[in-house]
Amino acid sequence: MSFPPRISAEQLTKIAARVKLVAFDFDGVFTDDSVWVFEDGRETVRCCRADGIGLEKLRAWGIEMAIISAERNPIVRKRAAKLRIPAIVGCADKLAALLTLTKQKNISMEDVAFVGNDLPDLAAMLAVGFPIAVSPIRDVQVANIAKYIPSHQGGQGAVREICDMITKTKRKSRESDSSTMNYLEEVLDADIRAIRNRAQGETLGL
Amino acid sequence: MSFPPRISAEQLTKIAARVKLVAFDFDGVFTDDSVWVFEDGRETVRCCRADGIGLEKLRAWGIEMAIISAERNPIVRKRAAKLRIPAIVGCADKLAALLTLTKQKNISMEDVAFVGNDLPDLAAMLAVGFPIAVSPIRDVQVANIAKYIPSHQGGQGAVREICDMITKTKRKSRESDSSTMNYLEEVLDADIRAIRNRAQGETLGL
Amino acid sequence: MSFPPRISAEQLTKIAARVKLVAFDFDGVFTDDSVWVFEDGRETVRCCRADGIGLEKLRAWGIEMAIISAERNPIVRKRAAKLRIPAIVGCADKLAALLTLTKQKNISMEDVAFVGNDLPDLAAMLAVGFPIAVSPIRDVQVANIAKYIPSHQGGQGAVREICDMITKTKRKSRESDSSTMNYLEEVLDADIRAIRNRAQGETLGL
Amino acid sequence: MSFPPRISAEQLTKIAARVKLVAFDFDGVFTDDSVWVFEDGRETVRCCRADGIGLEKLRAWGIEMAIISAERNPIVRKRAAKLRIPAIVGCADKLAALLTLTKQKNISMEDVAFVGNDLPDLAAMLAVGFPIAVSPIRDVQVANIAKYIPSHQGGQGAVREICDMITKTKRKSRESDSSTMNYLEEVLDADIRAIRNRAQGETLGL
Repeated sequence: MSFPPRISAEQLTKIAARVKLVAFDFDGVFTDDSVWVFEDGRETVRCCRADGIGLEKLRAWGIEMAIISAERNPIVRKRAAKLRIPAIVGCADKLAALLTLTKQKNISMEDVAFVGNDLPDLAAMLAVGFPIAVSPIRDVQVANIAKYIPSHQGGQGAVREICDMITKTKRKSRESDSSTMNYLEEVLDADIRAIRNRAQGETLGL
Repeated sequence: MSFPPRISAEQLTKIAARVKLVAFDFDGVFTDDSVWVFEDGRETVRCCRADGIGLEKLRAWGIEMAIISAERNPIVRKRAAKLRIPAIVGCADKLAALLTLTKQKNISMEDVAFVGNDLPDLAAMLAVGFPIAVSPIRDVQVANIAKYIPSHQGGQGAVREICDMITKTKRKSRESDSSTMNYLEEVLDADIRAIRNRAQGETLGL
Repeated sequence: MSFPPRISAEQLTKIAARVKLVAFDFDGVFTDDSVWVFEDGRETVRCCRADGIGLEKLRAWGIEMAIISAERNPIVRKRAAKLRIPAIVGCADKLAALLTLTKQKNISMEDVAFVGNDLPDLAAMLAVGFPIAVSPIRDVQVANIAKYIPSHQGGQGAVREICDMITKTKRKSRESDSSTMNYLEEVLDADIRAIRNRAQGETLGL
Repeated sequence: MSFPPRISAEQLTKIAARVKLVAFDFDGVFTDDSVWVFEDGRETVRCCRADGIGLEKLRAWGIEMAIISAERNPIVRKRAAKLRIPAIVGCADKLAALLTLTKQKNISMEDVAFVGNDLPDLAAMLAVGFPIAVSPIRDVQVANIAKYIPSHQGGQGAVREICDMITKTKRKSRESDSSTMNYLEEVLDADIRAIRNRAQGETLGL
């Protein structure tokens, strides 16, 4: 995390350990915020192969995931399908979409992480317990309210770093919980499940 | 702004506050000055998703925009259409095109910003009140006459940074204008309009 | 090599000099770990032209090569074919694949280099004599067990640097071997063969 | 020029001022040495828009140009055609090709600049009066024999920087030549011709 040092490591641990749903903006988070434009107007974006394993770790820990994007370009759905995450696209009001989603899943907004990088993400980020901003951050307010900023940029490992941080925090949090007797087995199980799921996903063309 | 410190912040504010039209070169400004070449000769360029919101802010403040490019490749028109900006392409004389445009719109060249990065932009940049150069700048004269150089490179946030700077200056300028009673409402209206327009643009495939 | 300085130059020389097979992961090693996603879901990756000459050097020294990738995307096979390396794709268990391969070729795992960058490479890297990690390394354990980390990143010269290092070590090792009388001629022959093979490969569209 | 400081500014001026032909390798010089690989095996490379004006300057000064590439991929010819430079492709022996070319044009090898970045360029670079290496340089010998190394990397302005350097040197050299009475007009003419040709080239889809 490059900045901000506004919250302590203890606070961060508490916030990350309770996450039940991670909602991601797409452009600038799963991509480097670039778009390659072709002569016929079609577009291409640059994503990161390393993100897949991070998302498998979240899945192994039972954490819900969603992409909420204003873009209607079919690329978002294609990438989300490969990563096996539900995607809400062409979304003009991300906060409203997130409120509907959390209501459906009966998850408190306090237990949600929202990952954004620009103005359209601001309202949703303000409303959740764990707002995360990905560099390059395009709006100063988005940077100011973030409780975590991964050191990797969007499309270059940011998503993986966020997933690793959350699952690592959950593991540490469980390890320090004396009431859990067999945490080690469970944790290892989750990690092995993540590797196995990833491998199977890859063979499915993930 | 990395350099030049040739003009003071006060001068910059004065110059930026009166801008009524921003004219942009395309390659190296909206793109990173790269071109991907395919086996059949077709081309692709890399643009930045973050630029759209910047242009919406200019639109919300009533500032005119245009792309003036020497390229004839259809990519320029495709990108301009998605960003809803008029584009003059295949232009051998950018200054002449700009003079025609400002005459049509009855805008003084003093109230024009021209954004370029190389020799073919030089004449137009010399003729306007607010010449802006985008890195990497390819010609030393273009660098020398620029009154503003955004810290983000072309195709990686330069256009967004220029738009943010101009609209922020206009807002500050209006705030310091005691004769404006309801400036705050207007400014907030403009920002909300920008976000809403952006969201609608995205749903239109912007 | 940026890090790790865990093993001495002498140890590295010994380890590299005995390599008989180099097995490579694909994404993040031959590529920059990015994937460009198109509207129809098709993908593109970014490789490095400089890698080809490195692989020709390995070939000239009689060192075996293989790509072992979890990906099923046809890009891996296409790139491998152009570089004239056998490729095992859609591989869920890289260590098992490597054990089969070394058994077929009657090569000891101690004489194998495995080049990886992430969790699915860990088991194979732990099992070989010369584990190599390519930046950006996605998993801390992968970084920790690596005996060599090239300074060039994946898809930007990492493979070339690894090949150059191994063949340079082999040459030095042979030069210091007093029992070899005509080492110089042989080495030069190998280098000339590498250049000639490369040139012919290029004319074949390599 | 980042390095090498092996030759003085005076020597460099002498060497650059007599250049009559600039021969370029393609990959790593006109491109960033990357290749994007598609699922069907087709390839794409990344070039730089800024190079075109540099080549027009060489043309305006009457300097010959050629691309000599080992690649057979049709991209090289497509890019060369757009830049209006002759291209020798699928070339296994660059030095032989260069010797044939200079014989045809009756140019001394002392008056030739060869721009390369890797082992296959070495022989041609050793044989010319002005060997130039482009970063990232893939072979230490290529770096060692270079008399000029532009600060911009391949595919990101290296070609433009080389052209600017040579034409600037020619201009300065002519200015200091007292026997030339009307050098200023000629120089300005050449610059204006360069801009005009470039503009016309662009309108031709250059």
